[in-house]
Amino acid sequence: MTPLSACNFGPEVTANVSSLTACATALRGQLEADEVRFEADESETNTFYLLFCAALVFLMQAGFALLSAGSVRMRSVKNILLKSVMDACFGGLVWYLIGFGFAYDKSEDGNAFIGGSGHNFALSGADDTTGKKDYGHDAVFFFFQYCFAAAAATITSGAVAERCTLVGYCAYVFAIVGFVYPTVVHWVWDEHGFLSAFNKDAMLTGMVDFAGSGVVHMTGGICAFTGAFIIRPRKGRFGELPEHAFAGQSASLQVLGTFLLWFGWYGFNPGSTLALHNYARDAARAAVTTTLSAATAATTGILLKRFAPGSCGGSPGVWDLGHTCNSLLGGLVSITAGCTTVEIWASVVIGFIGAFFYHGASCLMRRLKIDDPLDAFAVHGACGLWGCLAVGFFCTCDYSYTESGTACGVFYGGDGLLLATQIVGTVFITLWVGALSAILFSGLMAGGLLRISKEVEDAGLDNSKHGGAAYPDIATAIEEATERITPKRITSATDAAGA
Amino acid sequence: MTPLSACNFGPEVTANVSSLTACATALRGQLEADEVRFEADESETNTFYLLFCAALVFLMQAGFALLSAGSVRMRSVKNILLKSVMDACFGGLVWYLIGFGFAYDKSEDGNAFIGGSGHNFALSGADDTTGKKDYGHDAVFFFFQYCFAAAAATITSGAVAERCTLVGYCAYVFAIVGFVYPTVVHWVWDEHGFLSAFNKDAMLTGMVDFAGSGVVHMTGGICAFTGAFIIRPRKGRFGELPEHAFAGQSASLQVLGTFLLWFGWYGFNPGSTLALHNYARDAARAAVTTTLSAATAATTGILLKRFAPGSCGGSPGVWDLGHTCNSLLGGLVSITAGCTTVEIWASVVIGFIGAFFYHGASCLMRRLKIDDPLDAFAVHGACGLWGCLAVGFFCTCDYSYTESGTACGVFYGGDGLLLATQIVGTVFITLWVGALSAILFSGLMAGGLLRISKEVEDAGLDNSKHGGAAYPDIATAIEEATERITPKRITSATDAAGA
Amino acid sequence: MTPLSACNFGPEVTANVSSLTACATALRGQLEADEVRFEADESETNTFYLLFCAALVFLMQAGFALLSAGSVRMRSVKNILLKSVMDACFGGLVWYLIGFGFAYDKSEDGNAFIGGSGHNFALSGADDTTGKKDYGHDAVFFFFQYCFAAAAATITSGAVAERCTLVGYCAYVFAIVGFVYPTVVHWVWDEHGFLSAFNKDAMLTGMVDFAGSGVVHMTGGICAFTGAFIIRPRKGRFGELPEHAFAGQSASLQVLGTFLLWFGWYGFNPGSTLALHNYARDAARAAVTTTLSAATAATTGILLKRFAPGSCGGSPGVWDLGHTCNSLLGGLVSITAGCTTVEIWASVVIGFIGAFFYHGASCLMRRLKIDDPLDAFAVHGACGLWGCLAVGFFCTCDYSYTESGTACGVFYGGDGLLLATQIVGTVFITLWVGALSAILFSGLMAGGLLRISKEVEDAGLDNSKHGGAAYPDIATAIEEATERITPKRITSATDAAGA
Repeated sequence: MTPLSACNFGPEVTANVSSLTACATALRGQLEADEVRFEADESETNTFYLLFCAALVFLMQAGFALLSAGSVRMRSVKNILLKSVMDACFGGLVWYLIGFGFAYDKSEDGNAFIGGSGHNFALSGADDTTGKKDYGHDAVFFFFQYCFAAAAATITSGAVAERCTLVGYCAYVFAIVGFVYPTVVHWVWDEHGFLSAFNKDAMLTGMVDFAGSGVVHMTGGICAFTGAFIIRPRKGRFGELPEHAFAGQSASLQVLGTFLLWFGWYGFNPGSTLALHNYARDAARAAVTTTLSAATAATTGILLKRFAPGSCGGSPGVWDLGHTCNSLLGGLVSITAGCTTVEIWASVVIGFIGAFFYHGASCLMRRLKIDDPLDAFAVHGACGLWGCLAVGFFCTCDYSYTESGTACGVFYGGDGLLLATQIVGTVFITLWVGALSAILFSGLMAGGLLRISKEVEDAGLDNSKHGGAAYPDIATAIEEATERITPKRITSATDAAGA
Repeated sequence: MTPLSACNFGPEVTANVSSLTACATALRGQLEADEVRFEADESETNTFYLLFCAALVFLMQAGFALLSAGSVRMRSVKNILLKSVMDACFGGLVWYLIGFGFAYDKSEDGNAFIGGSGHNFALSGADDTTGKKDYGHDAVFFFFQYCFAAAAATITSGAVAERCTLVGYCAYVFAIVGFVYPTVVHWVWDEHGFLSAFNKDAMLTGMVDFAGSGVVHMTGGICAFTGAFIIRPRKGRFGELPEHAFAGQSASLQVLGTFLLWFGWYGFNPGSTLALHNYARDAARAAVTTTLSAATAATTGILLKRFAPGSCGGSPGVWDLGHTCNSLLGGLVSITAGCTTVEIWASVVIGFIGAFFYHGASCLMRRLKIDDPLDAFAVHGACGLWGCLAVGFFCTCDYSYTESGTACGVFYGGDGLLLATQIVGTVFITLWVGALSAILFSGLMAGGLLRISKEVEDAGLDNSKHGGAAYPDIATAIEEATERITPKRITSATDAAGA
Repeated sequence: MTPLSACNFGPEVTANVSSLTACATALRGQLEADEVRFEADESETNTFYLLFCAALVFLMQAGFALLSAGSVRMRSVKNILLKSVMDACFGGLVWYLIGFGFAYDKSEDGNAFIGGSGHNFALSGADDTTGKKDYGHDAVFFFFQYCFAAAAATITSGAVAERCTLVGYCAYVFAIVGFVYPTVVHWVWDEHGFLSAFNKDAMLTGMVDFAGSGVVHMTGGICAFTGAFIIRPRKGRFGELPEHAFAGQSASLQVLGTFLLWFGWYGFNPGSTLALHNYARDAARAAVTTTLSAATAATTGILLKRFAPGSCGGSPGVWDLGHTCNSLLGGLVSITAGCTTVEIWASVVIGFIGAFFYHGASCLMRRLKIDDPLDAFAVHGACGLWGCLAVGFFCTCDYSYTESGTACGVFYGGDGLLLATQIVGTVFITLWVGALSAILFSGLMAGGLLRISKEVEDAGLDNSKHGGAAYPDIATAIEEATERITPKRITSATDAAGA
């Protein structure tokens, strides 16, 4: 490259044509180098942005773990925590080895149904050398998608809590992270997917599910439904024992879990732009719509539970903390599909209606006597459905990103085709995930691998399978207090009390 | 735009003047395009930076929630957690609909006292299309400010904990997030505010309160004072029951809350630059001053409580964990005003003195028999005041940003005008917030809306209003242990113990 | 600078040579200005990146605090939490005043053993004005390194938990943060260090310990070993009381602590690039290797504990939550040294073997009857060692960064010199840290400053030294339940139950 010193003419000298030509060449070279530098800098910032968002989404694992631990009885805390850890760990290995490869296809002419040809299995085709899709970007994209897969998987753990074996649960994790979820991802988010808005040849308009109300939350929520149904309720859940006997053991953990999930959602929704460059406006808008939908849903939910006649579940007529937190989460799920494609005011409406979806589905599950300790189906399944449908109404033409031609919501002059696509998309997801998970859970149940034995359930999972209580000092005290027998573990209890 | 190929002269050819002109035009066009690209990239990075900082500040809601839940008695945990959730949710709606509009004015000739003309109500005037203040920036700025408003509001919940009704609390949230706090923001941070250092026509020098020792923390702390005073102490707080009967229920949650708040402060203080571009040095310095002030205040506080003669409150002569955490938070509040405008060594001094402000104010509240369960006034009000005053001493001329001419602290050759401004500013905030909150709380109290009934207080808020205990398994055991009656809830307790 | 308007030729005019010269000068000036702007923007993004990473590492303090609080008995919770707070606070002051100065040297010709000439003491030489290493960068680098120092220090608190005095612990913090850790940092990470891969004249190839398996974790882990050995076991730990009497008091806090640590590791490992520009690929790869090593180690660990014959410690033959979490952390420690220098698949192998290192070391400690309540040595010391050695096998030539010439792992054609260096490096760290910490702890023990008195141990640390139990409502209930005496604190307990 000609150095810029070719242009050192000095202030008073008029250069000749020859030296001017050399200078022009130098200038041009520098400008071309600048172009490369722009692209490199933007690529680096994109990588950083996705790393940040992925880290936030990762922390949602802690949020799910705590929300779950707080929502079960004290006897099952270690069990549900261990399942959360396994979601992130065993699920991570499954995603690395196979799930990611089924989800995204790097080849030119991929399959519309499932990935596979693109060498994403075990990241074997990650490109370390060139271009926008460099290794850095590949690696961080994998990391971001891993956090999503773990989130999708963990939703179900709450629905089958307190009575699912660890082995059965790991079989489920293998199936959902390795195959069920990746196929849905491929349909809706891969540019080859038949339901993908990024595919110009998609079915109808292609489904607009920006951050995954359908892909992630409905998938998890429907597994939660079939799992909870097939595994049957916890002993005594409907009838024999009173409602409050199944109250979650720690409101503090529930709320911390909720806040950590909300926090993580600021990676989940804004991060789904997958890049900062050219998408900063979308990311910022997503942060605001996410906030307002959650805020509205929680405010609606607390009033709904308090004042709605015949509110089912929990204690009626109270300011219900758990219901408020779940409504909040329902609001987050509801805005996830449309976080970047709806106007800000619309997020308030979407959150408002989301609270009703959550409330209705939660009531329905109780009426059906399906025992879902965390209301995982109501929060993720029902609100996930609403999130997808809402896009069919509220998606603006400016923000829509359908490659098959601009499709808008019916409130913005859309002809209903986008709404139809959203409906069709949710039907596909429901049937696919419902059928596969029903087969899986039924098979595990029939094989005696899904549900813990009566003996284990009577003795408590933590005591039977995990070496003791989650809070041993407290457990000892409770035992003393209720059994009123000669203290068996008096020594440690005395220690604990510091007496 | 002329393409750069106009400059393809080849190495040996001397171009003629005509082709050189075309080339020059092309080069110029490219350089101008680069200029636009620089600005776009910087704007995007700014948006990302503010999104990151806002997310951290958002997590402070979880920090406040846990610190509060850990600092009250077990009987009121769900109640205080629900108030934290409502701060973020109901408060978020209030901020969106009205608070943000009162706080910031987008018009050219705004009011010195309150915003309003600039279409920030319900983000109706957010600009989606152009310039540095584009929609992305507007949206993320709103998000960042929302997190601040929620933080300001939540401070008071600790001061009125365990005896304030949820309805009364929501009325307070409406008032502070919708009007009281936004006006203070407008005075000090909007470029039209009469106390604003960004207003070249400000009163005196304009107040230097970079991240809000005064705007956020004094506002919250003064509301905490008036609220705690007007609502009166918890039953038995001063005299009838011993001090330890009011000990916070969980040291673990207190410490986790403290750490989450500290973590969030790395968004709160560095993020108050509102942009990365041109402010990275300030952001980095703020991270360090924030760290050292907190570290010094905690180290000072633990010694002060242990060795100071006649230390009031809690257990004297011990290594007091709660006092240490509150001193730490006091150090964070103390450096908030001056985080970018003081030298690094000065942050150590500011934190050191901040620990005394906290300690003194905490003692004073006990002597006055004002029941502030979280020491919210001492941490946020007293240290907030010190933070504002400290700038009057330690603000360097290099780092000062007063638009009315450079105003420095008295230790840096300032003539005392900045210190005077800081004093005047804190007086304005105190009077305004004090008067409005006194009217509000008095009115609610007179209307019977602020304080829970004696019956509810005796039965406990969680049991009366929120459907049961925060830790039902533990509550049952405690009940059994203390009542020694035939177990009423023996079934669930036995379940819980896994026996 | 000549303005670009010098190039306003208009579309039809052919400029003359004189005006073309002026134009060329203007273009050149603009390009040079752009160069400065590129560098400034990249420097700002670097600062932001390091701020983000440092914040994540900072949150590891909360992770350590909770993991520790969950892993001790209820009687010592406040004590261990206070030590975590002091690590961050008192340790922060020590790092600011002296540690940072010993660690990094800003002078041209620094010492190979220890820093000191470079004015980093109390940040006195931080440069506020110029260049890449500007104040912003200096300040944020200090902040990042502070978080590392606090992490190194806090490792030991778990090993001496429940029997170490606060004064003795603070003496340890002073020594490790002020001198022991900084020297190791200087050896391995400063460009003058005799073991540093950034020093072209380093011993052998220079040690490749990218994020600190050796520098941070072995240092902490070896202190943990000597501390736990010298302070002797908790009363009744080996023999008198059953294993379960020492079970950690809260599985929920253990898991939350583990997740917060894992989350923080995404700042710890990727952030160790210290910059984003030119290192985004490394950062992204580090995020993936970190994930997979943790995931593999946890999955291996849970199976190992469940199925390995003669598994020592805890309850054999169970799905052990605590062991799984510690294996996970061991996987994170194991990949820390090689997070950017090994291929992605290798991180799976490293995590797999790391689980065995943890398991073996944990068993060994129990056999040696050394009481390490958090398995701090097994997690940080043993897996730290493995992490350093693993680089000697798996470091690729492409990713290696040894200044003395490219040194690769033995699986990539290396001649064994890198492996030898890694061995020698770990020996140096072991001897140096082991000797100094042995002298320190022995001295403190001999002086009666390290171990709490028998009376305090019998009464419990929290009750004796910290003004009461960490969970006073629960402690009261436990006391009632076990003592069966006329309730002393019946009032508060009744309150707590809300009865």
